Amino acid sequence: MENLTISAHFKSKPLTAMPRGYKTFITNAGIKDSSLALGVVVSEVPANAAAVFTRNQVKGNPVQVGIKHIKGGKMSAVVVNSKNSNVATGKQGFDDCVKICKSVADQLGVPVTQVFPSSTGVIGRRLPAAKVIDALAGLQGKLREKADFEGFAKAIMTTDTFPKFVSRKVGKATIVGVAKGSGMIEPNMATMLSYIFTDAALTAAQLKSLLKASVEPTYNSLSVDTDTSTSDTVLVMANGLAGKVSAAQFAKAFHEVALELTRMLARDGEGATKLFTVTVKDCLNEKQAKAIGKSIINSPLVKTAIYKGDPNWGRIFMAIGKTPAVKVLPEKIRIRWGGKSYSNETLAQLSEYLQQNEELKLEISMGTGKKAWTVYGCDYTEDYVKINAYYTT
Amino acid sequence: MENLTISAHFKSKPLTAMPRGYKTFITNAGIKDSSLALGVVVSEVPANAAAVFTRNQVKGNPVQVGIKHIKGGKMSAVVVNSKNSNVATGKQGFDDCVKICKSVADQLGVPVTQVFPSSTGVIGRRLPAAKVIDALAGLQGKLREKADFEGFAKAIMTTDTFPKFVSRKVGKATIVGVAKGSGMIEPNMATMLSYIFTDAALTAAQLKSLLKASVEPTYNSLSVDTDTSTSDTVLVMANGLAGKVSAAQFAKAFHEVALELTRMLARDGEGATKLFTVTVKDCLNEKQAKAIGKSIINSPLVKTAIYKGDPNWGRIFMAIGKTPAVKVLPEKIRIRWGGKSYSNETLAQLSEYLQQNEELKLEISMGTGKKAWTVYGCDYTEDYVKINAYYTT
Repeated sequence: MENLTISAHFKSKPLTAMPRGYKTFITNAGIKDSSLALGVVVSEVPANAAAVFTRNQVKGNPVQVGIKHIKGGKMSAVVVNSKNSNVATGKQGFDDCVKICKSVADQLGVPVTQVFPSSTGVIGRRLPAAKVIDALAGLQGKLREKADFEGFAKAIMTTDTFPKFVSRKVGKATIVGVAKGSGMIEPNMATMLSYIFTDAALTAAQLKSLLKASVEPTYNSLSVDTDTSTSDTVLVMANGLAGKVSAAQFAKAFHEVALELTRMLARDGEGATKLFTVTVKDCLNEKQAKAIGKSIINSPLVKTAIYKGDPNWGRIFMAIGKTPAVKVLPEKIRIRWGGKSYSNETLAQLSEYLQQNEELKLEISMGTGKKAWTVYGCDYTEDYVKINAYYTT
Repeated sequence: MENLTISAHFKSKPLTAMPRGYKTFITNAGIKDSSLALGVVVSEVPANAAAVFTRNQVKGNPVQVGIKHIKGGKMSAVVVNSKNSNVATGKQGFDDCVKICKSVADQLGVPVTQVFPSSTGVIGRRLPAAKVIDALAGLQGKLREKADFEGFAKAIMTTDTFPKFVSRKVGKATIVGVAKGSGMIEPNMATMLSYIFTDAALTAAQLKSLLKASVEPTYNSLSVDTDTSTSDTVLVMANGLAGKVSAAQFAKAFHEVALELTRMLARDGEGATKLFTVTVKDCLNEKQAKAIGKSIINSPLVKTAIYKGDPNWGRIFMAIGKTPAVKVLPEKIRIRWGGKSYSNETLAQLSEYLQQNEELKLEISMGTGKKAWTVYGCDYTEDYVKINAYYTT
């Protein structure tokens, strides 16, 4: 019954289209071990850009620097390392981050504020900035003309079990989205690390409003373990080299990219064996529907029940009932798994559905209104405990 | 390093004092298996009583009946079964509960509203009320004169690994407290099942205000797994047979009983190997201190870190920073484990402290004010997942 491998259906498909004008550099940099741990994406021309960040009040140094740099609305490069988050490392850590940005900026001949930094990995250890700067030396000559976004996605992984990327065509333009994250994930406002690159022409203001609209039903509707990272970041860059595209088509494609990355992040939650999507409908408003959904996907008792394929509606009821600040009418609640309701007749079928599927779809009808919301999570297994009890400083 | 047994220090000590006028009856009743599953406590004279209940909006039938019965402020008996919670069983379940109360009331010659019911166990299955009523037949003759509170504590256990009881003397009076609960525990307003019996003379209003004051820093500051049960109940009964006692002394003893039961409940959290107490001090107000403490004891990443003895302050910082609606000043935060601060020199000592102690004391100084609060939790182990993935309907 155990299935600790993730099927190809949930993993990234090879990228078939690339946005124009992006180059990449990927290397090890010697931060911790011999795996890829440093990735740079450069746009040939300054791109309009927008970003959202973690709401955790303890913010990593790269987040603090990124918040300053994004104010200009223009980005030429992204520099991301894994293996060390440069969080809670004080003024020294902030300066280390700025030095890395400056090294990239000087070599590209752009202002330092056009370099966007991120770091992910252990908290509270000084990032070996000198090693990173050494690895960046001669950057212009090392950049790969045909951008390797798949390699970039690999370089920024921590406990992820597969690299996460996805693309969409919009007219002549292309969107590529990349993300990483597996644990410490209940994004609030933004998420883990995610980067979306396009060659469509959009202003920074357009990107900002697109991001704002898209983040809520995707990254912010995701929870692996209720823990909000100190480094969560979503950045979008548009360098305009493919010219203007239909705003409606772009928004749709952008949302699809964000949603597919969100689903991959949930499926690849630490130790997870299932993607768990919960749709709460017939609800008074979207905020309540989301709160109820989150209460369900965050409940350790629901998450452990689905792990072994138990359609335990008592625990689901409990999780609905404990949702803070939402009035529920227990007698009106209807629960369906994979489109099937509970009854003595369907119980065996429901168990079979839970045991045999890698994506479990739970639908709750609240009977209090007409609004709906979907949230994304995963099951809770012994492996989550093992990964986090042994993975450490 | 693994220690899945709970040392005697954290378990109940044999009761040395008993309140006057209470009798008990304990039996199996055939609800599910052959273990003790039904307990009755009877007061010779009607006792003044007060109770608090779960804030989960899905309330078990016994909670709904209990809410009605406690309005009179008088109780003569408590009837509790384990193995079936009689939750989400509809009107039939409500009627089943009333019938059981009525059977007890008729045999004792008291009004049905003087019988207080509780049930705990699986959700959504009809309680075999006829079997319970059969077991209660001839109750007067079966009551044990010398109350067996330890047996009562055993009869109401579910996944608990030891029965929980504690007593205190107050002048000529005695308080005995009993509790059960191991999973689905983040009480909100009340808790799992807990009963406090005394022979001191106190009015229902006095009991109500005592309970209100005591519940917040004890049961409501406890979390095993963030899941708020649908059956949480704390009941206190005072039959007055020992006469009046010092109000201040009684309040102190009452608080000690509630606190000791809370600590036992945390230590016996499902799969737990450690009692985890977090004191947040130098804080703006108590509400914020409690919220920060809860964010820490509920963080899966902190709970898995302490399981293997990792004093991972990065995860603690993260948990502090994600606390909703509390402004924190990261640079002012100070963290101590067992009285020791973090430094390169103390790191090995801190690991040793975490690995070798069964009670881990974490102290956070927020630097934003002068208020403090303590919360009670436990570590997160593979066994929590196993217990809840395999324990089911």
